[in-house]
Amino acid sequence: MAERLYLFDTTLRDGAQTQGVDFSVEDKRTIAAALDRLGIDYIEGGWPGANPTDSAFFGAPQGLKRGRMVAFGMTKRPGRSAANDPGLAQVLDSHSDAACLVGKTWDFHVDVALGISREENRDLIGESIAAVKARKGEAMFDAEHFFDGYKANPDYALECLAAAYEAGARWLVLCDTNGGSMPHEVAEITAVAVARFGGDRIGIHAHNDTENAVANSLAAVKAGARQVQGTINGLGERCGNANMIALIPSLILKPPFRDALTTGISADQLAHLTSVSRLLDELLNRAPNRHAAYVGENAFAHKGGLHVSAVEKDPRTYEHVPPETVGNARKILVSDQAGRSNVIARFRELDIHLDPKDPRINRLLDEVKEREATGYAYDGAEASFELLARRALGQVPDYFQVERYRALVERRYNARGQLTTVSEAVVKCIVDGETILSAGEGNGPVNALDNALRQDLGRYSGYLKGLRLVDFKVRILNGGTEAVTRVLVESADEAGARWFTVGVSPNIVEASFDALMDSIVWKLYRAGAPPGRVGQTARLAGA
Amino acid sequence: MAERLYLFDTTLRDGAQTQGVDFSVEDKRTIAAALDRLGIDYIEGGWPGANPTDSAFFGAPQGLKRGRMVAFGMTKRPGRSAANDPGLAQVLDSHSDAACLVGKTWDFHVDVALGISREENRDLIGESIAAVKARKGEAMFDAEHFFDGYKANPDYALECLAAAYEAGARWLVLCDTNGGSMPHEVAEITAVAVARFGGDRIGIHAHNDTENAVANSLAAVKAGARQVQGTINGLGERCGNANMIALIPSLILKPPFRDALTTGISADQLAHLTSVSRLLDELLNRAPNRHAAYVGENAFAHKGGLHVSAVEKDPRTYEHVPPETVGNARKILVSDQAGRSNVIARFRELDIHLDPKDPRINRLLDEVKEREATGYAYDGAEASFELLARRALGQVPDYFQVERYRALVERRYNARGQLTTVSEAVVKCIVDGETILSAGEGNGPVNALDNALRQDLGRYSGYLKGLRLVDFKVRILNGGTEAVTRVLVESADEAGARWFTVGVSPNIVEASFDALMDSIVWKLYRAGAPPGRVGQTARLAGA
Repeated sequence: MAERLYLFDTTLRDGAQTQGVDFSVEDKRTIAAALDRLGIDYIEGGWPGANPTDSAFFGAPQGLKRGRMVAFGMTKRPGRSAANDPGLAQVLDSHSDAACLVGKTWDFHVDVALGISREENRDLIGESIAAVKARKGEAMFDAEHFFDGYKANPDYALECLAAAYEAGARWLVLCDTNGGSMPHEVAEITAVAVARFGGDRIGIHAHNDTENAVANSLAAVKAGARQVQGTINGLGERCGNANMIALIPSLILKPPFRDALTTGISADQLAHLTSVSRLLDELLNRAPNRHAAYVGENAFAHKGGLHVSAVEKDPRTYEHVPPETVGNARKILVSDQAGRSNVIARFRELDIHLDPKDPRINRLLDEVKEREATGYAYDGAEASFELLARRALGQVPDYFQVERYRALVERRYNARGQLTTVSEAVVKCIVDGETILSAGEGNGPVNALDNALRQDLGRYSGYLKGLRLVDFKVRILNGGTEAVTRVLVESADEAGARWFTVGVSPNIVEASFDALMDSIVWKLYRAGAPPGRVGQTARLAGA
Repeated sequence: MAERLYLFDTTLRDGAQTQGVDFSVEDKRTIAAALDRLGIDYIEGGWPGANPTDSAFFGAPQGLKRGRMVAFGMTKRPGRSAANDPGLAQVLDSHSDAACLVGKTWDFHVDVALGISREENRDLIGESIAAVKARKGEAMFDAEHFFDGYKANPDYALECLAAAYEAGARWLVLCDTNGGSMPHEVAEITAVAVARFGGDRIGIHAHNDTENAVANSLAAVKAGARQVQGTINGLGERCGNANMIALIPSLILKPPFRDALTTGISADQLAHLTSVSRLLDELLNRAPNRHAAYVGENAFAHKGGLHVSAVEKDPRTYEHVPPETVGNARKILVSDQAGRSNVIARFRELDIHLDPKDPRINRLLDEVKEREATGYAYDGAEASFELLARRALGQVPDYFQVERYRALVERRYNARGQLTTVSEAVVKCIVDGETILSAGEGNGPVNALDNALRQDLGRYSGYLKGLRLVDFKVRILNGGTEAVTRVLVESADEAGARWFTVGVSPNIVEASFDALMDSIVWKLYRAGAPPGRVGQTARLAGA
């Protein structure tokens, strides 16, 4: 009988500590929903009260379907009752299904950092956990520096765990806070806690300071721990947290974990792992690690002749797991076959039903490959993909044409001797055979172009009134100002629809304009706007 | 009595298999010399005969002072004598101190990939190793897929090792070729080989396909293996090899390895670890991983007031090893929680010594906070922070002034009816009292401005010849084209220095220009350029 292993993701809390990472509330909701779909049991969303973003995130229900939302906080301050601690109150008042409180278990930290007696520290752990248990039903205790604490003073470290346990903590999470422990130490010390409190009450929280965070987590699970904490792609301060994306497949696919444990992730959900990994990189606007375990672009790459023919004879010769189990693909064999079924599957999603032998599928495949070679990425830009596909099928009318545009940025002194920056743009369009020259100002060249373009599009203007640009991401693909730029634009309309479009060019303004054009055309298509009235000259952008 | 552990680096052989990596002979010599200085015992330089670079590298002595140069090759082909195998001959003839031959130990591979009898495979291992032993004195056997082979057919896998052992192999290296083994499996299977052949004859060669390469190597050493193979920064195909840079400090600094083993690396040599890691990135022209274990720029980064003051009381509160032991440094991050102690600690890093009560510290703190509120982030932009700090202390001269600039992007049809995009910029500078108007073209507005600005800066131009923009990151802070934009620029110079600067504005061109200006001014400051000759008018940017 397999035992249940619980997965606890802390991307939105401990991962948010990473240098340079700054999630918005919207980012947090997007990531939480993706983790929920993946089948993560606990999603730690942040620390209510610690900053305005986290307070806003916990200020309303997050709408999880299956996972439990966890609020993070600290044990109460010394010299106050739990009921009187304003920090703890914000955690208790948050919209969450459980709360996890961090507290000290290393005597050295109690002495040096807190400066209170060890008894007082032990008691405040118990009181704080009891307050969470009473209010939220489910309480967890993050035992900070537990492994260092155990090495220094095992009795005291265990006494702190016992205080949380006796106060009703569902989980006692053993944290290797500075990431310095070796796997065999984690195995030995976890086994002690498992023997005392039962593995189904013990969790592991590892950091990657010696590149052992994944191994430390596996060692703890092997020693009996039944909750694992980590972050997507190993996000986290310093060297990062345990990488959930590397842990999950090993826990599900590799013996002895495979046979001894079950998780909340089905085989179907596991196949979304690669896309969850990419989603985080997309939101953080950074290039995915091509060498990442399981999900990296090169994780199942095969080089040249003999090796490839062995893989074609039997993939088990060189692959430790089938790449498709984690939603990845064998790289050398990304054949037309794989590409075709992918494209057909996406057509089905768009409700386009084609004969698999339709030659237009091959033409579209060629175009997608050609564009991807120049830097386009359609994984995150569904609306641009839809336009590409529907254009290949002749379903997108020509609405209007952009003949030319110009954007200018100038920084100078104005008449009053003040420094000022001006951005202005001119766009020349042809709508229903009529030439319209529009100008616009903005606080940057793209904003100015957007304003100019939408100022007057004749009878199409009405369709675009509710359109707004929600987000705008710029990725430099090679490095340096001479690099190729990919711009991803997120748009929304008055009905709450959201769509993503993409543009690529060495020129950031051109890439942005192309993505804007796709956004506008997609909106017109979806709104059922009629085709332009006069003959079709070549469209300049978005075509 | 500590046992000797041997370190075997294969950056130049297995690491060279990485997609996109293409070492020159000169690169190989530079890396081999650095590994030799570091105290690595065995340096595997490549595969003589496999490609012209490796043949040239092994065509002459490599001049190692202390380490042994190893040539890699394959066991002889079936149906030929060892003396008659041209591939093996090139390995034997190479300038090297030892040779390592890879051979099959997994029955499935012998059957499917080689298609010869198992006896024949066993015998050709023995004959090949004997040939190396006779000619080079030291022979090693890389047991390909040993762990999978052992799991499938333990007797046969061990029989293959025995053939190499009996033929005189100094080392039997257990390879987890597809990287799929879990640490506990590596521990158990290595223990079997150690029991049979002795740990001082067993090596481990791990891959990172489950993010366990470091842990698998440590598990094998704990089980008795006394040779560890890996690459600098975990270079290698797919997900990479075991990362030598993460392994070395754990093996030297962490119990039980610290007390049970000695290596060829002294404490002084260990302090060069960070620079060896950076050297490889430099040769590969890629940005170092800021989150790398032990050597990453953020590996010992600390955020926030309380945390920093605890570290200053006693670094052991938050650091698992002293950063200087591996040649790294503590990094105090400037953040919106920036306390006084952060700023003072940063000053010390910049070698600025101020009375903690100096009122300029408070003024600087206020300025940092004000700027962070508008979107600046100095965590990743050390050079911009340094300029801000030194300006507050009056240490940065005025070099030149930018009076005004203009950037234009135009997309239109050219005279031949082709679509074309033009970006051009004009910058008006005052250098030594003289007005210089420069124009530049580029493939985008920022590139055009960069070209215009650097076209002529009078006597400062010479300082900027080697300056190049390595990377350019754009972050939109609110969302939408009206949002605030933060641009982070990474620059490098001819001496290998790298620095980061930041600019923030609602206008992406302005933000980029400000970051560019900071980069140029920082370079001039560091190069000791003299101040501008004429009176100071207000600087427009970067001030």
